[in-house]
Parts: sequence; structure tokens; C-alpha cells
Amino acid sequence: MPDDTDYDKLLDEFGADALTDDQIERFPDPPHPLVRRGVYYAKRDLDPFLAAAERGDTHSIVTGVGPSGPLHLGHVVPLYFAKHVQDRTGAHVYVPISDDEKYFTRDLTFDAVRKHLRENLRDLLAVGFDPDRTRIVIDTADADALYPHAASFAGDITQATVDATYGTPENVGQSFYPAMQTAHLLLPQLVHGEHPTLVPIAVDQDPHVRVCRDVAAKAKYKVRKPGALLSKYLPGLGGPGKMSSSDDAPSIRLTDDRETVERKIKKHAYSGGRESLDEHRERGGDPDVDVAYQYLYSFFEDDDAEVVRLAREYRSGELLSGEMKARAIDRIADFLDAHQRRREALGDLPEELELYRLTEDERERLRADPLG
Amino acid sequence: MPDDTDYDKLLDEFGADALTDDQIERFPDPPHPLVRRGVYYAKRDLDPFLAAAERGDTHSIVTGVGPSGPLHLGHVVPLYFAKHVQDRTGAHVYVPISDDEKYFTRDLTFDAVRKHLRENLRDLLAVGFDPDRTRIVIDTADADALYPHAASFAGDITQATVDATYGTPENVGQSFYPAMQTAHLLLPQLVHGEHPTLVPIAVDQDPHVRVCRDVAAKAKYKVRKPGALLSKYLPGLGGPGKMSSSDDAPSIRLTDDRETVERKIKKHAYSGGRESLDEHRERGGDPDVDVAYQYLYSFFEDDDAEVVRLAREYRSGELLSGEMKARAIDRIADFLDAHQRRREALGDLPEELELYRLTEDERERLRADPLG
Repeated sequence: MPDDTDYDKLLDEFGADALTDDQIERFPDPPHPLVRRGVYYAKRDLDPFLAAAERGDTHSIVTGVGPSGPLHLGHVVPLYFAKHVQDRTGAHVYVPISDDEKYFTRDLTFDAVRKHLRENLRDLLAVGFDPDRTRIVIDTADADALYPHAASFAGDITQATVDATYGTPENVGQSFYPAMQTAHLLLPQLVHGEHPTLVPIAVDQDPHVRVCRDVAAKAKYKVRKPGALLSKYLPGLGGPGKMSSSDDAPSIRLTDDRETVERKIKKHAYSGGRESLDEHRERGGDPDVDVAYQYLYSFFEDDDAEVVRLAREYRSGELLSGEMKARAIDRIADFLDAHQRRREALGDLPEELELYRLTEDERERLRADPLG
Repeated sequence: MPDDTDYDKLLDEFGADALTDDQIERFPDPPHPLVRRGVYYAKRDLDPFLAAAERGDTHSIVTGVGPSGPLHLGHVVPLYFAKHVQDRTGAHVYVPISDDEKYFTRDLTFDAVRKHLRENLRDLLAVGFDPDRTRIVIDTADADALYPHAASFAGDITQATVDATYGTPENVGQSFYPAMQTAHLLLPQLVHGEHPTLVPIAVDQDPHVRVCRDVAAKAKYKVRKPGALLSKYLPGLGGPGKMSSSDDAPSIRLTDDRETVERKIKKHAYSGGRESLDEHRERGGDPDVDVAYQYLYSFFEDDDAEVVRLAREYRSGELLSGEMKARAIDRIADFLDAHQRRREALGDLPEELELYRLTEDERERLRADPLG
């Protein structure tokens, strides 16, 4: 099935704007495939971020993880995107981990959340962020730094706003979470002072960023509204639509080996090819709905000429569905192999994580000191 | 005006039970005037607390402070009651300070809340609790210990429960606060393991305790439901009804000197005396609505025979309203004088407070350690 989302209509609805060619060009050279090929296709307040990156001024990306299960490919796409930018511009990257939210929204025990959290942290560390410019914060473990700010923001988020944005919450944790998320998105500014920040996020998450932007706009907080970089949905194996670890459709996990990737893609990846070889040779395939092609296009094939060639030869019938899948399997397995090797090379988790935790100095800046 | 609250009806409504004579006698000898004269008049799960106190087993009292302004007499009554019990039974006393809630419910700035907090802390320290058995926790400053538990409890408090108990919340902080309050009331058990606890509270606050009791009853938490000791309303100067720092009527502040106490009581304390001296001598006064008498009865006159005499002579017309007021002024000013002297004797606030903060060992027990 093709992705029948009307992305332009979503922008009209949310009041966000499409990325301009000029903005795409201003992303650090070369712009990441996600940007230059239009997966990230819209934005809010992007220019200040790009200008700060160009000038070498402080600029930050915030992209989170929710430890509700093993991470899969879709989860790490924004993380690797953030690393790509960081490598080129020196961006600060903040990764908030919402373990608290898992108590409210999933039927998971404390222990289950912690097990996922530890596994997710290993994957996060395997991305290879610059520890001097990257902070991983865990809602419960870093509550000393986060909660005082979330509590302050909570007074400025009406229950009616949350009901309208997220639907009627089942429990009071779900009601409060937008206040915690506001603290996440403003954290780089709370640590380093007012500066441009960017939140790469799927377009349907834009309302969540807007809740934070409305709080940030209040004069009493010395922060600016976080910018947003809005993406189309990365397809799951079953076809276009939003990837999620809770879908029934299988997804490629970060721990999958080459054989597993091959099996999953061969068996489950939705194909834009024709029913028979003869028909495919004669009438050609449709790369726009072909999941293997979409993976290569969005993230895994860096060479633009190659992407164009793959699409052209697929459309002409020259390139077969199995060949497209073989290419995707190869690229994804290579990617996972490198990720897994970095993951394997990690030492003791608390020790590795320590490099990415708030420093004592940063923590003091964030902490409530009611006696100070 | 007399206190026309139907306290029995409130118990029926809430499903709590009146204190029995046997229970009153089992309070540490001698039972505090608040208990033996029926101001604390009802309870939930009191017997396990009394039994633990008798056996010398772990038992705790939780009584909080909300730093929305200077404390007045009504605020410290439960604190001095808790100290009275602690002095006799060795009870742990936990005093949670809900500075976060002040961001949600009052139009107070961060700085204003902190100013009140510091002043309130001085008053708290002046009560003279045993530092080995007393913990003062501040929601924002101790969020590392409190928030992970509040977040866990939040998943078990439905929004519908909060709407029904507290009314529709204006903002998401108000929605979340019952989860924080649940962490407050369960804190002694989270630190010392499952044991009987008691929350002395005005009867109309009982629904708030019940929210916590419902969470505590869940099998996954290794705690028992906190007990409650429910009081009638202590009268404000303007007459019976609930004392509150936000009332328009003046109240006696902990910082008031003897002259101020005298002026406030003479001018504002609702009198049960008659219009004229002659009428009072002839028909007698009504101690039941006389605020000066009620203060003496509830808290400030320890001698039972004296309390009986005062009421008898007031009713007969022998004791005049001015004389009753003079007695109350004397007792209250003496009490405040002693409180203020202890307050003045305090040294540096952070240093004094340190003795009452969670120890590093206690904090480690409470903190989330997702990597542990």
C-alpha cells in the first residue's frame, strides 16, 4: 500500500511550513539524505538554528527515546541524523529518556522498563555521539534536575490543552507528561542559556512540540521556542505508515544479524514489484511504495546518483524486486553490523554512560536550591 | 458564628469512624489536648499505629507544609502535635514541603515560593523535632528521591479520580499533585519498609488521603495504607471554620509579638460574650463559639480542670469576655515567645536543615537507579 498521507494538508492543519531549497542547502555539507531527499520536509523556527550552526554559536538538537521495548531501525534514524549534524557543526545533542512515561502509558512493570532502559542505553551509546557535547538524561534518575522545571512549567499547561492535544488522559501521569516533555525540549537552554534548538520529529508529533513552544513563549522563562524539523513517516516493513515497536508487523531490530535482516526483508518487506517476472520486466515496478527502495532512499544509500539509478531501473523493469531487496539487505546489515560492533565494544554500562550524564556543574545549574 | 459543621455527617459521608474512648486512652500519656478533648475526633486505621507505638515498633507521622505564605498558628498545630507524640513514643515524623504545588495553585513566582519556603523552614526547625527521627523533604529539592515514586504512583491514579476528588484541575500540575502527595504519605514506608503510619489532617482533607490509600492497597507496592487522624476545624479569629493563611480575616502569625497578639485577639477574636457587661453577668457567655476559649481548649491550656473552670465560669457570667481573651493572649504569646526564641537561636539555615534531610543512605534507597 502506498503512503496516502496528505503531508501538505498536515502542514496546513498544524500551521508549519515546508523546508525551502535554501534551507536544505544550508544544512551542514552534505545535507543528510533525510533532509536533501525530503523525508524531513517541514519546519518551525529552523533559520536561527542554521544560522547559529553556520556562525559556530551554541545550537542544540533534542531527540528522545522511550524505553518500552527493544529499539528498531526507526528509533535510531533521528539519533544517527543528530550525530550527522553534530559531527559537522558541533551541535549539542540532548537525549531525554522518558522511563517515567512508560509507567503511565504501557502496562509495564518497573523492572521491565529498567531492563528495556539498559538495553536502549547501550544502543544509544553505540551511536557514538561526542560525549563532550551530548547529554543523556533519564527522567527518573535525573529527576533532581528535571522535575523542578517540569513542575514550574506544569502550572502553565492547562488541562484543557492536554485534553485537546493528547486526548483525555487515563491517569494523572499522562496529564503531567507534557510538562516533563517541555522540560526535555528546553533542557539545552536551561543548561547553556537561551539559544536555538531543534527537535527532529515525525509530523504528527508537532502538536507536542507546540505545547512546549507555548510555554517557552511566556516572558518569565528565559528561553526561546524550540524549533522543529518535521518528517514524513518512515515506512515499516509492511509498507508506508508510521514505524512503531508496538506494531504487529515485524520490524528490524538493532540486534538483528544479517540472516535475520535478510529473512525479514525477503518475507515481509512490501514490494513495489509485479506479480510475475515477465510482468515486471514488461511493465516495471513502483519504487514509491517499495519498502526496500524507501529504506535505501531515506537513509541507507548515500549516493544520490545510485538512488536515481535504482528508481529508474526499477521503473523500467530492468531491476527486479529481489535485487532491490538484496541491495537493502546488504546496506542495512552493514549498518547494523557496524552499530553492533560499537555496541559490543562498550564496557561497563554505568561507566560508559557517566561520560554522557549531566556534569555536577550542569546539574547544580538545573537543580532547585531553595536555600540558595 | 458557631461552627455549624455536622462532623458526624462528614464521617458518614467519608466512611471514617469516630475515635473511641479506648483509642484516646491509648495515645501516649497524657494524650494531647487535641486528642483528649475531641478536636481530633475520627480516624482510619489508627489501631496498628497505636499498637506499634506501644510495642516500640517503627511508626510514623506525616504532616506537611505548603509554602504559600508566612505560617500562622493553625499551620503549626499538627506539627506540635506530631512533636508531642514523637517525644513520648519515638515516632518518625516526615514533613513534606510542597513547594511545587505552589507553582500550580497560587499565582506565586519561583522566587516568592522560595522566600516563603525559607521562612517556613525556620519555623519548622523551631518546633524542635528529634533530628534522628525527623525528615523534612522538599518536593523540588528532593525530587531525586520523590519523583520516581510519584511517577510510578501516577500510573495508578486515574484522571477521573482526581477530577472527582479535587474538582476539575486547571493545569497539569494540579492533576499530578495527588501522585506527589501519595509519595509523601508513603515516604516513611519507602524508607523504612512497611509499617503503620498516621496522617493528622482536617476532616475535609480525608478524600486526599483516600486517593493515596487506594494506591497503597495495590499488591505491587510493598506498603500498607496510611492511617488518618481527622480533626474538626480549628477556628480562625473571625470564628469557627477553617483557618487559612489566604483568608481575608487576620490570623495570628508565628512572628507576631505579644502586643500584636493582644491587638489581634482584642479586636478580631469572635466573642461568645454578651453585648453589655450587665447582660453577660446576668445571662452568661457561650464558650462554644468563643474563639479565645476555643484556642485555650484545643491547644493552649493544658490543664483540664482549668479548661472546665473557664467554661463553667464563662457560662455563669462570672468570667468576662475580656478576661477570657486576656488568658488566651497570655498563653498564645507565651507559646509564640518560646517558638520565636528557638527560631532566633537557629544558625545558618542550610546547616540546620541538613540534620533533617534524607541521609545519603536513605536517599539511595529512594532514588531510581536504572542501571543497578
